Amino acid sequence: MKRLFTNASILTMTSREVLRNQSMAVEGDRITYIGDQPPRAAEYDEVIDMSGKLLMPGWVNTHGHAAMTLLRGYADDLPLQTWLEEKMWPMEARFGDEQVYWGTALAVLEMIKGGTTCFADMYDHMDQVAKVVKESGIRARLCRGSIGLGSEEEQQAKWEESVRFAKDWHRQADGRITTMMAPHAPYTCPPAYIERFVASAKELDLPIHTHMSETQKEVDWNVKEYGVRPVEHLRRLGVFDLPCLVAHAVHLTDEELDILAEYDVKISHNPGSNLKLGSGIARVPEMLQKGIRPSLGTDGAASNNNLDMLEEVQLAALIHKGASRNPEAVPAFTALQMGTVFGAEALFLEKEIGTLEPGKKADFITVDLSGPHMQPQHDLVSLLAYSASRDDVQDVYVNGDPVMRNRECLTLDEEKIRYQAQVVFDQIRG
Amino acid sequence: MKRLFTNASILTMTSREVLRNQSMAVEGDRITYIGDQPPRAAEYDEVIDMSGKLLMPGWVNTHGHAAMTLLRGYADDLPLQTWLEEKMWPMEARFGDEQVYWGTALAVLEMIKGGTTCFADMYDHMDQVAKVVKESGIRARLCRGSIGLGSEEEQQAKWEESVRFAKDWHRQADGRITTMMAPHAPYTCPPAYIERFVASAKELDLPIHTHMSETQKEVDWNVKEYGVRPVEHLRRLGVFDLPCLVAHAVHLTDEELDILAEYDVKISHNPGSNLKLGSGIARVPEMLQKGIRPSLGTDGAASNNNLDMLEEVQLAALIHKGASRNPEAVPAFTALQMGTVFGAEALFLEKEIGTLEPGKKADFITVDLSGPHMQPQHDLVSLLAYSASRDDVQDVYVNGDPVMRNRECLTLDEEKIRYQAQVVFDQIRG
Repeated sequence: MKRLFTNASILTMTSREVLRNQSMAVEGDRITYIGDQPPRAAEYDEVIDMSGKLLMPGWVNTHGHAAMTLLRGYADDLPLQTWLEEKMWPMEARFGDEQVYWGTALAVLEMIKGGTTCFADMYDHMDQVAKVVKESGIRARLCRGSIGLGSEEEQQAKWEESVRFAKDWHRQADGRITTMMAPHAPYTCPPAYIERFVASAKELDLPIHTHMSETQKEVDWNVKEYGVRPVEHLRRLGVFDLPCLVAHAVHLTDEELDILAEYDVKISHNPGSNLKLGSGIARVPEMLQKGIRPSLGTDGAASNNNLDMLEEVQLAALIHKGASRNPEAVPAFTALQMGTVFGAEALFLEKEIGTLEPGKKADFITVDLSGPHMQPQHDLVSLLAYSASRDDVQDVYVNGDPVMRNRECLTLDEEKIRYQAQVVFDQIRG
Repeated sequence: MKRLFTNASILTMTSREVLRNQSMAVEGDRITYIGDQPPRAAEYDEVIDMSGKLLMPGWVNTHGHAAMTLLRGYADDLPLQTWLEEKMWPMEARFGDEQVYWGTALAVLEMIKGGTTCFADMYDHMDQVAKVVKESGIRARLCRGSIGLGSEEEQQAKWEESVRFAKDWHRQADGRITTMMAPHAPYTCPPAYIERFVASAKELDLPIHTHMSETQKEVDWNVKEYGVRPVEHLRRLGVFDLPCLVAHAVHLTDEELDILAEYDVKISHNPGSNLKLGSGIARVPEMLQKGIRPSLGTDGAASNNNLDMLEEVQLAALIHKGASRNPEAVPAFTALQMGTVFGAEALFLEKEIGTLEPGKKADFITVDLSGPHMQPQHDLVSLLAYSASRDDVQDVYVNGDPVMRNRECLTLDEEKIRYQAQVVFDQIRG
């Protein structure tokens, strides 16, 4: 299939400049041309007029637990421990394949409708998640998240399942699925258990994904238990010797920032979740100063409460200015980079996605520019970072294939998912 | 005209409870009934099925400068003084009636499309603003904002215009327009000038609206210039002896919070603008603890950069939890109150609007509940405060009349406004 998109405003994300009235050609799963003199229109199976729309890379959501979308709004405005121990864990213990399948389908549908073309997911029953990814046409980097607090048998079973899942699904679904190894967090995994995942990741040549320094309490616990803060703890366990993505990274000292920069550890900044759970505000301006390129994640919808990556971009652009009382912190374009190209880097997919360039995978979205909130059109980068709405996203393409057109998802049955999500939620709330 | 809305979920905002499968009757400009046994359907001119939708009060935006929407994205990510002195003020100096008319029309269109049914506006060329309000069907509390830094003649002319405007337009447009008196701010108005506005407001029986304590710099300047912080300064000038609404109120001591609570001073919290300009994060949790009921405002689109009140509600629900590291700060329902009933109180219109109750004006919106981000439907209050999007707003009614239906604005010409806004913006950017 060869498609030509004409008369488009194009934000390639290789620079802040928006190309005006340009064309983009897509052949198969790749971008083949961007410019104002494309090969003749007759050569294409489809020529699509993009007047009044912006083409840009899709959002890359670098941390989440898609199936938890089923628990959206189930418990809010509670202290973290109450929320987790009394609300989330008892419900999650009742999750079966059905809950994970439909919860993930609901999540992926929401992500597609908001312009996300790739997401990272760490959860259980991961075959169901991979199944949804395969069916929906979205791209994903998936991992079985393992909490190592149980018996040796339980630990072993989870580790084996992590390895089995990572092997089974890596590079499946036309290459849209890749995998990672995921010890859940320093506070839920004994050191030896983390080392087991490091060894497997090395053997399988896969990245490691884990939670780190989300709350002050967790940092204090780490110091009490192991004598060092989480960053040094993970460094000593060899986690940072491999490609590694840590989620949250809210509570960091200057020295810890230096270590993360030195080891090129990728960070998934989750502003919505960190705010809602009262975890704090990550030191993003300092990360940027030290050359770290933080990406963005929604975390699970139970602590956000949506999977709207544009909202995360806009939160990243706003909250650090207010918290640091510096209107120059996290400029508009940087926030958009965090949601796209830094996200691709965080998932170790930057050779394939994150920018629009000939040779890269055709993962992109179109944004309607006609809404009153998008006028006057002085600076499209500013409009995206500060004013646009998720419903401005009109079309979503992944691997060159249309996944949404004119806000209609082409790959998933929206009505069925809405119905089934409610059914399987009602099954477990008792 | 008599209308009956049936099979609705109704959030009256008199309590957190959502009424399910209920009806609301509207006769002329008033709500006449809410419940499950309305008078017979045959008695109505129109019966509208609200299945799958939520009815709730429209948003009340308590601080802004609508015409500045023309400068959306014109200058971002700059220090406040550079932004103001090098970017905003030179452009605003070129504003004429045309700029204010079309800038305000663009703003009101955007507000209607986001479900705002009433807004406060402080600007210049206010007859143009009132004209847009009259034509658009929205409700507004308007005031000519006067900076008292010029000559005595200039000061006098602005004061006279403020009084003339406030008299001419109060209770016009079927009562949808009310007015206020507005000395711009303590740092832009000499004390005697503020006192002149206090005297006029008293004589006209109108509230006072002003900016206060937006930045730390402004507070420091006040102390240096007058020996006291802005709150005590305005108290001594008699501003708080009248009904008074202050915008921002970011930098407050405990004692100042006590004074504002004692005098029942209304506050317009502008989280988006305060974050974007790097002004800081207002002490909203402490305000609530002291019994102050802060409302929400977008401020001008040049510092926000949109007029999306739902985003302000969501920011209010999120940022204070993160900043105070307390997930119980500003619960979901409180954030919704800030956007509706506290807003009505802040504009001294709480007897007419802010909740859905028989006898009140029929200012309300309908929210589509079918989006994937609104599933499962466990808690609609949580879904609104944390997950909904402005485009979920389907219909907007003000004074009993439909202003938007199925996302189509019925009172304003969207295409013409988009075109003209660009034209008059291009005229002044040189």
